[in-house]
Amino acid sequence: MAPSELNCTHQNQHSSGYDGPRSRVTVVGSGNWGSVAAKLIATNTLKLPSFHDEVRMWVFEETLPSGEKLTDVINQTNENVKYLPGIKLGRNVVADPDLENAVKDANMLVFVTPHQFMEGICKRLEGKIQEGAQALSLIKGMEVKMEGPCMISSLISDLLGINCCVLMGANIANEIAVEKFSEATVGFRENRDIAEKWVQLFSTPYFMVSAVEDVEGVELCGTLKNIVAIAAGFVDGLEMGNNTKAAIMRIGLREMKAFSKLLFPSVKDTTFFESCGVADLITTCLGGRNRKVAEAFAKNGGKRSFDDLEAEMLRGQKLQGVSTAKEVYEVLGHRGWLELFPLFSTVHEISTGRLPPSAIVEYSEQKTIFSW
Amino acid sequence: MAPSELNCTHQNQHSSGYDGPRSRVTVVGSGNWGSVAAKLIATNTLKLPSFHDEVRMWVFEETLPSGEKLTDVINQTNENVKYLPGIKLGRNVVADPDLENAVKDANMLVFVTPHQFMEGICKRLEGKIQEGAQALSLIKGMEVKMEGPCMISSLISDLLGINCCVLMGANIANEIAVEKFSEATVGFRENRDIAEKWVQLFSTPYFMVSAVEDVEGVELCGTLKNIVAIAAGFVDGLEMGNNTKAAIMRIGLREMKAFSKLLFPSVKDTTFFESCGVADLITTCLGGRNRKVAEAFAKNGGKRSFDDLEAEMLRGQKLQGVSTAKEVYEVLGHRGWLELFPLFSTVHEISTGRLPPSAIVEYSEQKTIFSW
Ligand SMILES: O=C(CO)COP(=O)(O)O
Repeated sequence: MAPSELNCTHQNQHSSGYDGPRSRVTVVGSGNWGSVAAKLIATNTLKLPSFHDEVRMWVFEETLPSGEKLTDVINQTNENVKYLPGIKLGRNVVADPDLENAVKDANMLVFVTPHQFMEGICKRLEGKIQEGAQALSLIKGMEVKMEGPCMISSLISDLLGINCCVLMGANIANEIAVEKFSEATVGFRENRDIAEKWVQLFSTPYFMVSAVEDVEGVELCGTLKNIVAIAAGFVDGLEMGNNTKAAIMRIGLREMKAFSKLLFPSVKDTTFFESCGVADLITTCLGGRNRKVAEAFAKNGGKRSFDDLEAEMLRGQKLQGVSTAKEVYEVLGHRGWLELFPLFSTVHEISTGRLPPSAIVEYSEQKTIFSW
Repeated sequence: MAPSELNCTHQNQHSSGYDGPRSRVTVVGSGNWGSVAAKLIATNTLKLPSFHDEVRMWVFEETLPSGEKLTDVINQTNENVKYLPGIKLGRNVVADPDLENAVKDANMLVFVTPHQFMEGICKRLEGKIQEGAQALSLIKGMEVKMEGPCMISSLISDLLGINCCVLMGANIANEIAVEKFSEATVGFRENRDIAEKWVQLFSTPYFMVSAVEDVEGVELCGTLKNIVAIAAGFVDGLEMGNNTKAAIMRIGLREMKAFSKLLFPSVKDTTFFESCGVADLITTCLGGRNRKVAEAFAKNGGKRSFDDLEAEMLRGQKLQGVSTAKEVYEVLGHRGWLELFPLFSTVHEISTGRLPPSAIVEYSEQKTIFSW
């Protein structure tokens, strides 16, 4: 059965008498977080009369060890057996291996793929999407380049010519999949009505979403917090205790805020109090892979490289924090800001072996230069 | 040997040629945190020419099991064997059991006693302290009364007729005693020069202190964070994971900020990014006694009372968080603000058995009403 022939059994069951235009949602991506996002959205499109029930999910097609196609299995079992096993996505989620087909009727597009695929996907979608469509990026791994960060939301906006909001927060996908209480932040540019629509589409009693008019601030939080998680991991590896870890996390939050505001003066202080800010920082510094590998690095006194530990501990996955620290270090050096950001720069110098892990707490001679 | 006869061997050894008036410091209190404070101060008075070397520490006299007096043992061994065993305080710390004698020559008074003793101590000191003396309160457990919170710094200011700053932060005393990196925040009212003098007196390479003009904000952070630590403990006891814990901590921080600003409109947003704010919150929600007992409470499904668990787990020490939650609840009820603070009020309702521990994450129908 081709996905386009699937009947969505819940269609037209809304009893609210709503007769305005209905929005159609497509999720571009179907990994761990993409599948959870589809599940959250699918609960709400069934309830909210202003949305079509069906949620289409573009799946990068794979053949499973059984010989079956991943999309077929998702559509038959209603589970993403590969990336979110054991969780029902909702009968109204339809997996579709054809990118163009998946997006053609949608006016709300949710992007949630590994960030290195986004440019290619956008290029394939140019001219193929509905006029006036709205985008939302859930992608945390943007890159920081010398001339400034390469924001995924800007990439989407620029290449597709559409408005793009972001959704970030303390969101460990597997915990949300089992409906543990969590929060998220939507960042938007100007149009609050659109942002509120995204909030509506994701909110459930266990997933609380709020919107802030600060797309860059929200998106930068998601990336920069990984540098702080490396620092927190060093503190854990050195067994310095909770006071020290809390201090390092606070200094890290301050540098996240200062760096974001230097790059984008429009970034708001209050964004850092949102889920995308302090909460995502906390969850990443408590759990998280960046923290874990950095802890092992410090325990080994910096004698085994990050590449080595990564290969051993993460089986091929790459850490964001170490490369983000490198990218940020280049920006800082280029702009003459290194002394303003002792924590960010020290993380890079430790991870490249230029300083020992204990340097993470040696701020004795340094005083904060910027105020906030 | 009476403490007043002790010679401070370092007196007059400064070689800087400083000949202005020297400040004399007395620490009122000698518990765990008081002893660490005396140690920090004593390192600095030796180095800084504008201070007399000697740091007097008022000790509530006790007779030890050996039959010796606590003050005598401190002066002989240079250790507070009862509250900070194993740590040398510095030869220039002089323990004094006589409160009036301890303060009479000091123009800088550091208060660090259990908060319930402060009113009595201030009354004993009325008219006995130097004119123009300055006070600093390290006391985190202030009281919230119906008509508003009774700030310890105000109590000191009002009863003694002197200016009072506060010092708060992510400060687990035993970690600072062993010189692990930490930070603190001095809160002051108007006079920045005095605040900078306190900063100087406490700062070491492993203890970074900064000053903010917001005495109420700093002091309220220190108290209110204990309510959030109770909530975080519930989440731990329910084994809800890091996402949920991070979300609860963030909502708690938001309520701390909103409550402080409603009570004192002068409170600054930026204070919550200081060590006294987000960092103290983190360390208390990770380590901390409030968290620990609340975790046990939730693990027992609320069936054993806090009083019971406290008695068993803390051997006579009292938790601040449960009583602060009660006091804040009364203020909220009195002012009609209960719905504005779902986390604060739910902590109280859980700890009194009116709601089950799982209620801590049931905010489904509640939307935040205030913005920040
Ligand atoms: O205030 C504290 C750390 O700064 C200690 O918190 P607890 O009282 O919960 O142990």
